[in-house]
Amino acid sequence: VNGEAAGPVAREADHAGFLAVVSGELPSGVLDLDEAARSAVATDRASRLPQPPPVAVVRPRSASDVSVVLAAANRFGVPVVTRGAGTGLSGGAWALPAGIVLDMSGMDRIVEIDPAGAIAVVQPGVITAALDEAAAAHGLAYAPDPASAAISTIGGNIATNAGGLRFIKYGSTRQAVLGLTVVLPSGEIVTLGGRTRKNVTGLDLCGLMVGSEGTLGVVVEATLALVPRAVDTAMLAVTCRDWSEVQRCVLAVASSGVTPSLFELMDRGALRVRGPAALSTIGAPADPLAVLLVQTDGVAAVAELARLEEALSTTGAWVSPPLAATDAALMVALRRGETLPGYSDPQVGGADEEWWLGEDMAIPATRLSEYFAAADAASRALGVGLSLVAHVGDGNLHPSLTVRRDSLDEGPAQDLLHRAADALIRIAIDLGGTLTGEHGVGVLKRPWLPLVLSPTVLELHRGVKAAFDPNDIMNPGRAY
Amino acid sequence: VNGEAAGPVAREADHAGFLAVVSGELPSGVLDLDEAARSAVATDRASRLPQPPPVAVVRPRSASDVSVVLAAANRFGVPVVTRGAGTGLSGGAWALPAGIVLDMSGMDRIVEIDPAGAIAVVQPGVITAALDEAAAAHGLAYAPDPASAAISTIGGNIATNAGGLRFIKYGSTRQAVLGLTVVLPSGEIVTLGGRTRKNVTGLDLCGLMVGSEGTLGVVVEATLALVPRAVDTAMLAVTCRDWSEVQRCVLAVASSGVTPSLFELMDRGALRVRGPAALSTIGAPADPLAVLLVQTDGVAAVAELARLEEALSTTGAWVSPPLAATDAALMVALRRGETLPGYSDPQVGGADEEWWLGEDMAIPATRLSEYFAAADAASRALGVGLSLVAHVGDGNLHPSLTVRRDSLDEGPAQDLLHRAADALIRIAIDLGGTLTGEHGVGVLKRPWLPLVLSPTVLELHRGVKAAFDPNDIMNPGRAY
Repeated sequence: VNGEAAGPVAREADHAGFLAVVSGELPSGVLDLDEAARSAVATDRASRLPQPPPVAVVRPRSASDVSVVLAAANRFGVPVVTRGAGTGLSGGAWALPAGIVLDMSGMDRIVEIDPAGAIAVVQPGVITAALDEAAAAHGLAYAPDPASAAISTIGGNIATNAGGLRFIKYGSTRQAVLGLTVVLPSGEIVTLGGRTRKNVTGLDLCGLMVGSEGTLGVVVEATLALVPRAVDTAMLAVTCRDWSEVQRCVLAVASSGVTPSLFELMDRGALRVRGPAALSTIGAPADPLAVLLVQTDGVAAVAELARLEEALSTTGAWVSPPLAATDAALMVALRRGETLPGYSDPQVGGADEEWWLGEDMAIPATRLSEYFAAADAASRALGVGLSLVAHVGDGNLHPSLTVRRDSLDEGPAQDLLHRAADALIRIAIDLGGTLTGEHGVGVLKRPWLPLVLSPTVLELHRGVKAAFDPNDIMNPGRAY
Repeated sequence: VNGEAAGPVAREADHAGFLAVVSGELPSGVLDLDEAARSAVATDRASRLPQPPPVAVVRPRSASDVSVVLAAANRFGVPVVTRGAGTGLSGGAWALPAGIVLDMSGMDRIVEIDPAGAIAVVQPGVITAALDEAAAAHGLAYAPDPASAAISTIGGNIATNAGGLRFIKYGSTRQAVLGLTVVLPSGEIVTLGGRTRKNVTGLDLCGLMVGSEGTLGVVVEATLALVPRAVDTAMLAVTCRDWSEVQRCVLAVASSGVTPSLFELMDRGALRVRGPAALSTIGAPADPLAVLLVQTDGVAAVAELARLEEALSTTGAWVSPPLAATDAALMVALRRGETLPGYSDPQVGGADEEWWLGEDMAIPATRLSEYFAAADAASRALGVGLSLVAHVGDGNLHPSLTVRRDSLDEGPAQDLLHRAADALIRIAIDLGGTLTGEHGVGVLKRPWLPLVLSPTVLELHRGVKAAFDPNDIMNPGRAY
């Protein structure tokens, strides 16, 4: 056992005391001190670098297990990092070397689907796409659709308020969460929110949990709103030759009177590996600066798409005819693959010959062309490669920054990538944007917090955290 | 000046100290000690009974005025009740006799409408319908649509997280609020959230402000998301003969694949004055148990309505053909008028011959027939009249309880109405519901809080409040 205290917990953690209590109270197999097991939960997808392992891994099977662990951690001052599938991109689930990791992925039961009420009750370890699939059997859908849906958990989605591709029409995880069962650091189990669509009983502490990145408590059950499954979808692809054309398309869609169900962007860099073949398949002009995908859904998908086609016809951009379903699926897959470069598809971004940094920021979508002009200039000045995918309809941008491995060693390359990210974040903020749209602050975005949150607002954060977690054991030093 | 300390502020309020400071620092005319002015802001629409007047009224013209007042109130221990148009229905804006009232209705400027970005920046005193009208000039709409939209303010809507008639498709005030400028009790001015659609930088303190009923700080500016204005709307009216037919209609709409833009209910009692003429106008069967209104909007309103018509055709209920626009407007007006009985239309509910209590609660919409059976039995057993209007699609119910004035004096009648409300709230909670869907807890709903919020959750509320308002000057003793 690693007995060395680290991290921001004020008093020294008493690991021996903690382990004595929990090993006596937890069912067999829940507590794991094995080194390989500990190392396996030390990091997330924010970095390929190994992180120091935690003191122990706990794999709870029930709210009661979680309660035992938190009560003991609270008593013995042991930091707790809560983890779902570990697909986070900001380091929010990195282990703390003096802490434990609570791996919630085993609590993966869909407790209930109420088809008539369009409600699901799930444990936090349920994979997002699995819930959507279970809902589909009843003609329903789980609307939040992070690009990681096939591998991320509902609990992780709640921790970061995951957004994703359907956000523009359906909102983020926060809009889907009606109620939560939460274990507080004291070990007490509380319910926040409930089962109704409207609820203003008390402060919105249920909403506050969403996006709190494991700093307030542990979600052990979630009551989620489902939506009617789209009976139809329709999609256009649009190719643009310059950023002002992209901007005109964004404005045209915004003023069309139709809210698309998906409105995505891939630029030339993001398209470089698989884009040419895909564009050829749909008969688009070769080598555009950017491709936009605009989808509608529901009973009136075709009528709504016609309206969007009309709106886009004045922009100068090339607009495809409505895509065949297979082509639409191809284009969406192209877009999704890009979001986790180096992981889901080693051919795309972050490939072996490049050092890579994936970013997440948000701007008002009206400022896109200004953003790109400034970002392009800044990255060129640093000698860093820039490409962009974006949930363009809502202004949530995922720039990819790259440095060729044959030009720099890892240390200097990471430093350069960090400087480029810094420049892009400042550009976004100057345009009325913010430093994370859906990935969370975690560890990696904390240096930029003062650009967005004033000292007084950060003090409010600490006060709110203290109300939930007076001993600061929950993911201390992360998120804010 | 009323120097008597009252209310839950721990130390005695120093009114003389407060008045000396603010009268020196505020521009002329902002502070008002006139008795008539004080009495005019003492109550809201939750009661026709007069409330004791506050010590002073402040009518700020700027964030700076609000800052001066809160800093002084905080220093001298003077409770502050913040008020918009005073249309609240739960007593959340009732004056505290030892406190002051901050009347925000004069800060009523629409600061900016960004048509391309679909964003409005407003002061809190802007009337909700006025914002929607201003947005309409740009082909946009402000989606939240409380029945009080013509008379309530954005600030008041934020305080209660107002929902309303378009909630089922567009969400509540919380979904519209992107950013807030807030004056804290310390007098510090902070910004929470921002101008982007997605934003996970820090805890969602912006969302926490929405629905906080004046207990955390004072909103002095709000950045709000607008939506495309519906280019078309279409509506059906449905009449039902019993509650199981109503329930079948609710389930049919829920499983139709279409999310209506409005789905409302008026029962026989709510229809009794103007219902017969309206029903005759649209050719509906006379004297139904309930009328449902189902509206679709947008490019595909007609196609979506056809789908709803088909879904409803199997329920046994009478379904109108698509209504002419004038008839649709008539039916919506009928529905809106009922929400504030005794105020907007003295002929409807709470008429001169009745003591009246209007309620607000929410249930899962699948439990409606069970709710009504139990509520009907409970009110009959007490000899209290019951009628119902509802945002039926989302399960938000507004029962009206009445006692004939010729049967009881006011005191015993109010007691009886309170007992009937208690029964209905317990029925709602037993069915998985909650005690307020959109009006807020205010003063009147506090007795029932322990039915929904556990002692631990209430303790969390107090901790969060202390982080914002350590001296408990902001609407103390209200909301939670």
